[in-house]
Amino acid sequence: MAVYTDVSDDELKAFVAAYDLGEVLSFQGIAEGVENSNFAVRTSRGSFILTLYEKRVAAADLPFFLTLMEHLAARGVSCPTPLKTRAGETLRSLMGRPAAMVTFLDGLSPRRIAVRHCQQVGAALARLHQAGADFPMVRANALSVAGWGFYLEATRAQADTVKPGLAEALAAEYRALAARWPSDLPTGVIHADLFPDNVFFLGDRLSGLIDFYFACTDALSYDLAVCLNAWCFETDGSLNVTKARALFQGYETVRRLEPAERAALPLLARGSALRFLLTRLYDWLNHPPEAFVKPKDPLEYWAKLRFHQGVADCAEYGLA
Amino acid sequence: MAVYTDVSDDELKAFVAAYDLGEVLSFQGIAEGVENSNFAVRTSRGSFILTLYEKRVAAADLPFFLTLMEHLAARGVSCPTPLKTRAGETLRSLMGRPAAMVTFLDGLSPRRIAVRHCQQVGAALARLHQAGADFPMVRANALSVAGWGFYLEATRAQADTVKPGLAEALAAEYRALAARWPSDLPTGVIHADLFPDNVFFLGDRLSGLIDFYFACTDALSYDLAVCLNAWCFETDGSLNVTKARALFQGYETVRRLEPAERAALPLLARGSALRFLLTRLYDWLNHPPEAFVKPKDPLEYWAKLRFHQGVADCAEYGLA
Repeated sequence: MAVYTDVSDDELKAFVAAYDLGEVLSFQGIAEGVENSNFAVRTSRGSFILTLYEKRVAAADLPFFLTLMEHLAARGVSCPTPLKTRAGETLRSLMGRPAAMVTFLDGLSPRRIAVRHCQQVGAALARLHQAGADFPMVRANALSVAGWGFYLEATRAQADTVKPGLAEALAAEYRALAARWPSDLPTGVIHADLFPDNVFFLGDRLSGLIDFYFACTDALSYDLAVCLNAWCFETDGSLNVTKARALFQGYETVRRLEPAERAALPLLARGSALRFLLTRLYDWLNHPPEAFVKPKDPLEYWAKLRFHQGVADCAEYGLA
Repeated sequence: MAVYTDVSDDELKAFVAAYDLGEVLSFQGIAEGVENSNFAVRTSRGSFILTLYEKRVAAADLPFFLTLMEHLAARGVSCPTPLKTRAGETLRSLMGRPAAMVTFLDGLSPRRIAVRHCQQVGAALARLHQAGADFPMVRANALSVAGWGFYLEATRAQADTVKPGLAEALAAEYRALAARWPSDLPTGVIHADLFPDNVFFLGDRLSGLIDFYFACTDALSYDLAVCLNAWCFETDGSLNVTKARALFQGYETVRRLEPAERAALPLLARGSALRFLLTRLYDWLNHPPEAFVKPKDPLEYWAKLRFHQGVADCAEYGLA
């Protein structure tokens, strides 16, 4: 929830004038997104989102993200499409920050997750993976094993203030996963953060995917493990197997999982749980007291991690 | 800048279903307004603003504000118009808070104020006063003399931490104004907060007025004094007489000021400066450390107050 950078009417109009968008009719900061400043811009040609990239997004990664959205949109994935200026630019500068305009997507993020949502998210994720298959750029997953080491180190001293014994439990999990982390699964472009916040529905129909700023090149089935954690657990911490089955079934209507991917799922789900647990723990311990955004509870992911540690086989997720 | 209350997709859809607005297409928290939670809602029938009234707005005042907007809009003032449900309600409840939907106005708030803005704001203010002439409801100005007494008391102990001697200077000004505050000027509905943030322009044309949540019944010329302070000073603290002249000239194209109103202007301008100085000082001293909104500098209004204390006659504002 944020607008970190103020943009005046004159600066906005000068920025928008470089596109073929007609007259600016309205301009509002959006209270969404914790990484960047986002504005809804309406012009006589339609509705658009202006994003100013704040310091947490590495400027060097922006061409990957913007080119990827263009690539996916061109292949039929409903996602924000970067606009080009008359000079052909997508990545620009405003208020001293990297900035881009993208198309506006209709839709609402679901709060109460139903089985039908999971089925459609699975299918949309598989279509994203297929559409990304010929994407030529590569970006390492900064929040995979190597990244976990950093967050483990950075949270070690204070982790036990959140839950006694947490620091050692995380270190043990990290060692276990690092020793067994697979490197031979099918890889490609993954979204890596496909939480309900980032998926729009109109009525019961999935209408779009947003926020590609964690996208990277990694195991496709890891993306599915992220979705399993993000979409298929109830608020009491238990897995809803019907939702998990719908997620996988939706995915496999588009792309069949290989046996190695199925076998790796419990491990990938642990890795995904550890990734979000560590970053949430870091934010929890380090958020400035004046921050408006309340950090998310890291222990939600501790419960998920514990669950996956007890899973021996993907059949426990409802995968036949 | 704020969304204090979270509204889920399901709750929003149920709320919107009471109006004839078709399907909800998008829903975004707006990072604007420090008093309430505002959301931009797009449906198949158009764009609207949903406002949840947070604790700083007295629920008992909401019928005044909503009925006033309806009244003004019906008389041609371009301002948000409350929507009625099929059952005829405008003021409703959502997430345990009073809530209303209003029409969305196109336009951008100007940042760099030009003379042409001041002329149009003057004319729009006078049209608002005319359109409000037959408005039957009354609401006292809670931020006039009696209200200043509260803020004076509440800031007394700490005022000197902002500027040495400020507490006594404010108390003296309060005594001087309270002794001479006029009660016989033409009164009616005033906006009372018509800052540039609350005025939209499309190109060079004023397109709408928003934020009627300080509106009340008071001297019409006090509203003009608020605008003088809000629109006609340069960032170095000096009055731009050309802007002031344009503001008054715009106003008088619609409604002539009476001699008593002109004579009272320097006093009214001091009162308006004291009002914003006191509330800003209060917010400055009392904002919670975790607040996202940076309070506005109260001393901007100290400089304006000092200026008006030296004004003997409204001719110094460019008023012939």
